[in-house]
Amino acid sequence: MRILIANVNTTTAITEAIAEQARSVAAPGTEIVGLTPWFGAESVEGNFESYLAAIAVMDRVLAYDQPYDAVIQAGYGEHGREGLQELLDVPVVDITDAAASTAMYLGHAYSVVTTLDRTVPLIEDRLKLSGLYDRCASVRASGLAVLELEADPQRAVQAIVEQAERAVREDKAEVICLGCGGMAGLDEQIRRRTGVPVVDGVSAAVTIAESLVRLGLSTSKVRTYATPRTKQVLGWPMRFGR
Amino acid sequence: MRILIANVNTTTAITEAIAEQARSVAAPGTEIVGLTPWFGAESVEGNFESYLAAIAVMDRVLAYDQPYDAVIQAGYGEHGREGLQELLDVPVVDITDAAASTAMYLGHAYSVVTTLDRTVPLIEDRLKLSGLYDRCASVRASGLAVLELEADPQRAVQAIVEQAERAVREDKAEVICLGCGGMAGLDEQIRRRTGVPVVDGVSAAVTIAESLVRLGLSTSKVRTYATPRTKQVLGWPMRFGR
Amino acid sequence: MRILIANVNTTTAITEAIAEQARSVAAPGTEIVGLTPWFGAESVEGNFESYLAAIAVMDRVLAYDQPYDAVIQAGYGEHGREGLQELLDVPVVDITDAAASTAMYLGHAYSVVTTLDRTVPLIEDRLKLSGLYDRCASVRASGLAVLELEADPQRAVQAIVEQAERAVREDKAEVICLGCGGMAGLDEQIRRRTGVPVVDGVSAAVTIAESLVRLGLSTSKVRTYATPRTKQVLGWPMRFGR
Amino acid sequence: MRILIANVNTTTAITEAIAEQARSVAAPGTEIVGLTPWFGAESVEGNFESYLAAIAVMDRVLAYDQPYDAVIQAGYGEHGREGLQELLDVPVVDITDAAASTAMYLGHAYSVVTTLDRTVPLIEDRLKLSGLYDRCASVRASGLAVLELEADPQRAVQAIVEQAERAVREDKAEVICLGCGGMAGLDEQIRRRTGVPVVDGVSAAVTIAESLVRLGLSTSKVRTYATPRTKQVLGWPMRFGR
Amino acid sequence: MRILIANVNTTTAITEAIAEQARSVAAPGTEIVGLTPWFGAESVEGNFESYLAAIAVMDRVLAYDQPYDAVIQAGYGEHGREGLQELLDVPVVDITDAAASTAMYLGHAYSVVTTLDRTVPLIEDRLKLSGLYDRCASVRASGLAVLELEADPQRAVQAIVEQAERAVREDKAEVICLGCGGMAGLDEQIRRRTGVPVVDGVSAAVTIAESLVRLGLSTSKVRTYATPRTKQVLGWPMRFGR
Amino acid sequence: MRILIANVNTTTAITEAIAEQARSVAAPGTEIVGLTPWFGAESVEGNFESYLAAIAVMDRVLAYDQPYDAVIQAGYGEHGREGLQELLDVPVVDITDAAASTAMYLGHAYSVVTTLDRTVPLIEDRLKLSGLYDRCASVRASGLAVLELEADPQRAVQAIVEQAERAVREDKAEVICLGCGGMAGLDEQIRRRTGVPVVDGVSAAVTIAESLVRLGLSTSKVRTYATPRTKQVLGWPMRFGR
Repeated sequence: MRILIANVNTTTAITEAIAEQARSVAAPGTEIVGLTPWFGAESVEGNFESYLAAIAVMDRVLAYDQPYDAVIQAGYGEHGREGLQELLDVPVVDITDAAASTAMYLGHAYSVVTTLDRTVPLIEDRLKLSGLYDRCASVRASGLAVLELEADPQRAVQAIVEQAERAVREDKAEVICLGCGGMAGLDEQIRRRTGVPVVDGVSAAVTIAESLVRLGLSTSKVRTYATPRTKQVLGWPMRFGR
Repeated sequence: MRILIANVNTTTAITEAIAEQARSVAAPGTEIVGLTPWFGAESVEGNFESYLAAIAVMDRVLAYDQPYDAVIQAGYGEHGREGLQELLDVPVVDITDAAASTAMYLGHAYSVVTTLDRTVPLIEDRLKLSGLYDRCASVRASGLAVLELEADPQRAVQAIVEQAERAVREDKAEVICLGCGGMAGLDEQIRRRTGVPVVDGVSAAVTIAESLVRLGLSTSKVRTYATPRTKQVLGWPMRFGR
Repeated sequence: MRILIANVNTTTAITEAIAEQARSVAAPGTEIVGLTPWFGAESVEGNFESYLAAIAVMDRVLAYDQPYDAVIQAGYGEHGREGLQELLDVPVVDITDAAASTAMYLGHAYSVVTTLDRTVPLIEDRLKLSGLYDRCASVRASGLAVLELEADPQRAVQAIVEQAERAVREDKAEVICLGCGGMAGLDEQIRRRTGVPVVDGVSAAVTIAESLVRLGLSTSKVRTYATPRTKQVLGWPMRFGR
Repeated sequence: MRILIANVNTTTAITEAIAEQARSVAAPGTEIVGLTPWFGAESVEGNFESYLAAIAVMDRVLAYDQPYDAVIQAGYGEHGREGLQELLDVPVVDITDAAASTAMYLGHAYSVVTTLDRTVPLIEDRLKLSGLYDRCASVRASGLAVLELEADPQRAVQAIVEQAERAVREDKAEVICLGCGGMAGLDEQIRRRTGVPVVDGVSAAVTIAESLVRLGLSTSKVRTYATPRTKQVLGWPMRFGR
Repeated sequence: MRILIANVNTTTAITEAIAEQARSVAAPGTEIVGLTPWFGAESVEGNFESYLAAIAVMDRVLAYDQPYDAVIQAGYGEHGREGLQELLDVPVVDITDAAASTAMYLGHAYSVVTTLDRTVPLIEDRLKLSGLYDRCASVRASGLAVLELEADPQRAVQAIVEQAERAVREDKAEVICLGCGGMAGLDEQIRRRTGVPVVDGVSAAVTIAESLVRLGLSTSKVRTYATPRTKQVLGWPMRFGR
Repeated sequence: MRILIANVNTTTAITEAIAEQARSVAAPGTEIVGLTPWFGAESVEGNFESYLAAIAVMDRVLAYDQPYDAVIQAGYGEHGREGLQELLDVPVVDITDAAASTAMYLGHAYSVVTTLDRTVPLIEDRLKLSGLYDRCASVRASGLAVLELEADPQRAVQAIVEQAERAVREDKAEVICLGCGGMAGLDEQIRRRTGVPVVDGVSAAVTIAESLVRLGLSTSKVRTYATPRTKQVLGWPMRFGR
């Protein structure tokens, strides 16, 4: 089985970290292909950048010319998943949803610890749209930007642990979701320091994508995610710079 | 005062109809400038097309090189408004919100009548995110595609009236919102035939945008809609084909 | 166009302040007529006083014998708007709703800063009934009574700013609504000191009322706000003391 | 123990019917005093009439010059209960709440069958404010006006049974609440014909008021229902025509 | 009238305290019979123990071989009430619901003060299922286990008062519910020290059960609580150790 | 990896069917052990039977004396999962949740088709408690009892398809969940006849349990699902008839 995992940022180091994390949990026989968008922000931290990433991810995935069985969108709280679901016949899994739906098996309430405060409302809104917000105790910002996370993982761990502990103590969270694709791989350290289960969305998404493929399930095409109607679409595909 | 009104479709006839409707209700001294995106679908009827339009509208508005006081996004239930709010300092009004918030002054519950059934969940989701869904009695599809509306307004009126009457009778709506930018100008005929107030989002948005400008109010920059951080953004601005 | 703006308190100084504020934002050609109820409390701060004001406002508006185009009820979180909507054919705008629906165009969440703590639940309940509560981050009390606000505007500004700053910092509000008709005119000072948009409900209501009139829209009469049935009503109209 | 039960309509025949029903379920030693407002509509069927009744009931109760232990407001879905709670130290029970909270002990979901369609949104809104709407399957109108109910009880039973049966079959109600003070006494007939428990709000309110008195419980005065502050209130008490 | 009141714990001292409290508020002519389950935990403080108690209570009530008119389940936030409702024809009242529905007549919002933190989510969930959570300001833990409450009532009062005061001040509760059957009898002391109404669920449940019996109302059998279908049930009744 | 899958019914034929279905989707190396409770109803269709099953499943799982890695509770909409989570250190997956959380990856809304109408409220309530109800379009009953499903699978398919088609057409479901452990294995036939993805909870639960084990994740023990405190528990373990 081949799973495409699309970074939302144009920074390839993040793509590599995400793909490496995905490979570390993938079942034997699952091939992970990391994709970096051809255009967009080096790090996605807000609506404009997220909308641009949404289109860039769709463009990049459509340009992939080998067969594949599922697609993971590896941005936390980002736009675009519904577009991929329309365009593709294979299952699409967003790491925001994957972390949340996994966390709900582990405790009565979960919190998300993310990067900057400005992305908190985006994450909350995406969880609401996905129907996974009811058991969300809080979304908290570590205060570190995406690229700062990448540059200094130990500082990241420290900042995330601080918010995770407050989430458990003040917000009554029982599980922590790592709210950024770039946090992949930090889960074990944070679990050890907080004593609660920590869910990495990339890892969770890999197992969910594998499961859907194994069960022969894919996106329903009867209504919301029906294939786009045939029509004139100017400037599409973009294939930016290719 | 100059207000930009951005069509989400690349069909210029729709832009013209929208701008004409906007002008018909604008206050003396308000200049309406209609903008057509440089890329994207000829008609937007689903998530992929809507995400593409989101970026195309942002690209097109940013390329406008004269001063302006407010921007209206004239697509019903479409993505992108939050991106414009980050990128711009002037107020941004989406016609989905404008119709709904206006309808709530006119009756206890409102319904939206839109184009195709596949767009109903998008509209519902956008209203939920905007916090304007509580008093929404229903979103109903006329079954006509955007370009069919344009091609045959009388058939459109008939199809909308049928759903509007069912919304009043079965869903207990007291006000009807026209759920497509391309329906601009049909409100009076539908009001006459249904006996309930009919709100055209384009018209409502013009008065709201004018009001915000007049009151000196614009988007809060303290959190969700803060200006994007300075960073490398590949392929932006797009200025497609220019 | 003539707009009646009804104070809910029987203190005429408040009526004058409200009308003055309304005139300062009204469009050229809009005449503002301030009305003071003929009975009721000098300041409305609770359910009993608010119910009494509801009837007093209806009584006072019905006694106005010149033509008019819209009515604004200038009490924050007060009862009565639905009664006016039944009795009148022209649009009715409550400043509670006007501030909230305007705030929602300016940020992801808004807070209201009002007078006494005892009025907070009334405001929350009115916003819930109006369907405008979803994006409300909090309703906070400044601790000042209505007449204290009137007597000492600078103390009022200080108390409001303190709560507004906490709303932004702790409750994640991005916009502040002034939660009392008597706060009209303080918006600019509070905006300057908090750095977020501040919405005065009186000003917002004027532009909304003007817009509804301009668009030819008024209250739906098909169900909730149908004209009262013809029947014996003892002691009505009250025309108290006239 | 003496319980005042206030009709919201100025029709004394309804007061008598309500008081008779209340007496039929009251405990030995409970005295029921029926009060008819001195002003207001002969039958309350909408917001204006309901707001007027709210004040008229407060005025009438305050004018009662003997000791009493609790007050019941016997209008279904009417305004005013919160005002009484502020003005009085004894417990206040609204029949809308009494029927709903009782019904919730009897089945998983309840429906209300009321008079005219125009009153349905009022009842829904009052139940929402009281926090008792979650298990409400529907509010249905029998189509009969209050005075028609009084005039022809057998026709009333027939119309209510029809809606009750639809509520059970279509809306999945398991219990029916009689949604009008004037329906007092019809419960047994309707239960016999529908096979589900039928709750008359007047009867339920009597037992709840008695229970609160017996338990020594009354309205909390710490916030929402604190006694009104001392201030000038023009035209109050009204004592209409006395 | 005879009312069975079932303790959920197997500690008979608690049964006695509950029954004594029940008798102290029962109407003349009401006989209270306390039942202790034949199996289960000495104190119920979590889901496993609560599920076991659910079955043990059903088993114990079914083994009672004299006539009775109503059953009270005297555990706060425990499982099982729906099972009793299926098995019995007489009304069933849970003290969780009884306290909450009573509190809602006394203030705009109520808080529950319970025993250990681990039981808070159970109580919240039971209130949600019962449709009584909307006006719940908070559920707070005193930190004392059930048997500690029993052993040292003055320490219990102190711990409950501390949380009750925080509930009023921080969570805006206006009424306090005692969140444990074992707190029966402490209400008066806590009311005196906090100044807000305090509801003991056992007392409230007695008056509600009496009222339902008096009104001739019992559980609807049309759907959720229909009598179990005839079928083979291994090991039932349990009649543990008898 | 060894996964225990517990039937809630005491009918061993259902255990065998469930285990067979589980084995058909399990990964290589996963051993499935089916467990039948030692007491309880031959088929679980209501609250009493479900509560009894909850305890019987806990009792049966605790009696299993070999190592295992995860437990699946294979009843749809049944009580008990939270008790298992407290008692065990390995992950616990309920098929109700598994089907719903899987369905949410496949479409905008899902419906459940279950057995008898009386079980519909149980399923709705369990989904609400699990935080997975937001995207639930409806829960529909096929009208067939559990043992009828077992006895005549073709009749079951027909009855389920009828309700599934109505769920898609009338309730706007895009995915169907099979709402009974005994429906395991029917998914493919129903998918073929309805054209929408069909999720069997048993299959979904197997992949989720495997994934949690693979990711090293298990139940959080910090609050709701902490291990029960040490105390006297009469009659436990039950080990009925052993």
